[in-house]
Amino acid sequence: MKLQKISSAKCFDGEQLRYVHYSDVLQCEMKFSIFLPPKAKEGAVPVIYWLSGLTCTDENFVTKAGAQEYASDFGVAIVAPDTSPRGIDVPDDPEEAYDFGLGAGFYLNATQEPWSKHYNMYDYIVHELPQLIASEFPINSDLSSISGHSMGGHGALTIALKNPELFRSVSAFAPICSPMQCPWGQKAFGNYLGDDESRWKKYDTIELIRKSTERLPILIDQGDADNFLEAQLKPKLLEQAAMAADYPISLRIQSGYDHSYFFVASFIGEHIKFHAKNLL
Amino acid sequence: MKLQKISSAKCFDGEQLRYVHYSDVLQCEMKFSIFLPPKAKEGAVPVIYWLSGLTCTDENFVTKAGAQEYASDFGVAIVAPDTSPRGIDVPDDPEEAYDFGLGAGFYLNATQEPWSKHYNMYDYIVHELPQLIASEFPINSDLSSISGHSMGGHGALTIALKNPELFRSVSAFAPICSPMQCPWGQKAFGNYLGDDESRWKKYDTIELIRKSTERLPILIDQGDADNFLEAQLKPKLLEQAAMAADYPISLRIQSGYDHSYFFVASFIGEHIKFHAKNLL
Repeated sequence: MKLQKISSAKCFDGEQLRYVHYSDVLQCEMKFSIFLPPKAKEGAVPVIYWLSGLTCTDENFVTKAGAQEYASDFGVAIVAPDTSPRGIDVPDDPEEAYDFGLGAGFYLNATQEPWSKHYNMYDYIVHELPQLIASEFPINSDLSSISGHSMGGHGALTIALKNPELFRSVSAFAPICSPMQCPWGQKAFGNYLGDDESRWKKYDTIELIRKSTERLPILIDQGDADNFLEAQLKPKLLEQAAMAADYPISLRIQSGYDHSYFFVASFIGEHIKFHAKNLL
Repeated sequence: MKLQKISSAKCFDGEQLRYVHYSDVLQCEMKFSIFLPPKAKEGAVPVIYWLSGLTCTDENFVTKAGAQEYASDFGVAIVAPDTSPRGIDVPDDPEEAYDFGLGAGFYLNATQEPWSKHYNMYDYIVHELPQLIASEFPINSDLSSISGHSMGGHGALTIALKNPELFRSVSAFAPICSPMQCPWGQKAFGNYLGDDESRWKKYDTIELIRKSTERLPILIDQGDADNFLEAQLKPKLLEQAAMAADYPISLRIQSGYDHSYFFVASFIGEHIKFHAKNLL
């Protein structure tokens, strides 16, 4: 099965579509959503990849963020993949916790058993999915940006920092800034990547920004009423690392906002405008 | 229990709040959501009541419609009630069908057993809830409008037509225009109101518009790719009845749109602007 449409709905004069396909790198069927703006009827359009957070599927962003209005206005597509491999053959956290296993792929390639067979979200997001998108949709892959929320903010930042040639800009809402230095990340990385913390560094934004040589436009919004701010997200570590590395980033602390999609919805328009400016 | 806050989240510089209270007319605990725009910090603001469709709770509109952006801009509050009485004491469709019983109150006062004790959504929406809102929130009740989707469009239209003195304007997305003339309505009305169809007329938009003497601004959007258009919604009946009654309505057929919240989201901004024009 190469690609099968699950649903479609007109939205802000564009199309909100959902597909299922078989992923070779994840060895399971995967669903993703894609919004095509009205301009896609006339030719290839730029694309923003959206990576979601813990517990999400491809649908949370699509139904809750209100991004289609802006994507329609600016003429950009948005691809929203799932957050982990899926299916009865895919192992989950033995305790079915929300922060590891299904819904918690952390956008890395696992090296440890039993995770390494399926949990290769890094290769899926960086290689397999964009190739599929480029071959099947009116997308100009040379004009790609990436964004995400929480675990997906970590994914967007690490993937962009590791592949600056693939993206024009990157943004994040309440990203996990240093998985190596927070409980969510330590649990996931320990299980997916093993105990040797030196191997964790290639998936840690703080470590990557220290070593980066190229510069991408980076926009980050973080609510100061976010329950996960101090223990899990730690934007100050990123601010310090970026300053030390002389890497300009725009990190905005938004007063009163929490970790929810009400926060994402409030600023998604500005993020899409930011990406559009770098894509168009 | 008069009123208890369940959750709050900052959203577009306003507040998205959720409450639970005991309803005397429904004889059960009820949840509702309310969005307060930033202007509510300075004084009382106008309010739009939003009535949702079959299967919905107060949360679907709040998370999916993207209305807060516009409510914030125009300085209007939005109250989103649930769609039926709730709780283990409240009887449901014996077959647990989606179109009757829980999640399907049809915004009427039931007269038949076992429904009449709890299923009094008409009195709840018209009297009890607005009184609670007026007493507990910075709302100017003299400036109220009402809107809704599908079964909630039926609710908004019938409630406004029966109470033109309470509302400045009414709008609907894909409303059930004549419950008396469609399977959803016939099932619900037959059960809630009994077999005597003469009693159904006071909850049927077509019947009400025929008898109306006052005129409210009415805006209706209907997608022409809506699966329920022909069998359940029947906007042509409303168009004909309004014309015959010399009641001006704005009924817009939106090409390619279906029955989903992707349709509602695409036009909610125009509906809020329409109400704001009549409220401000």
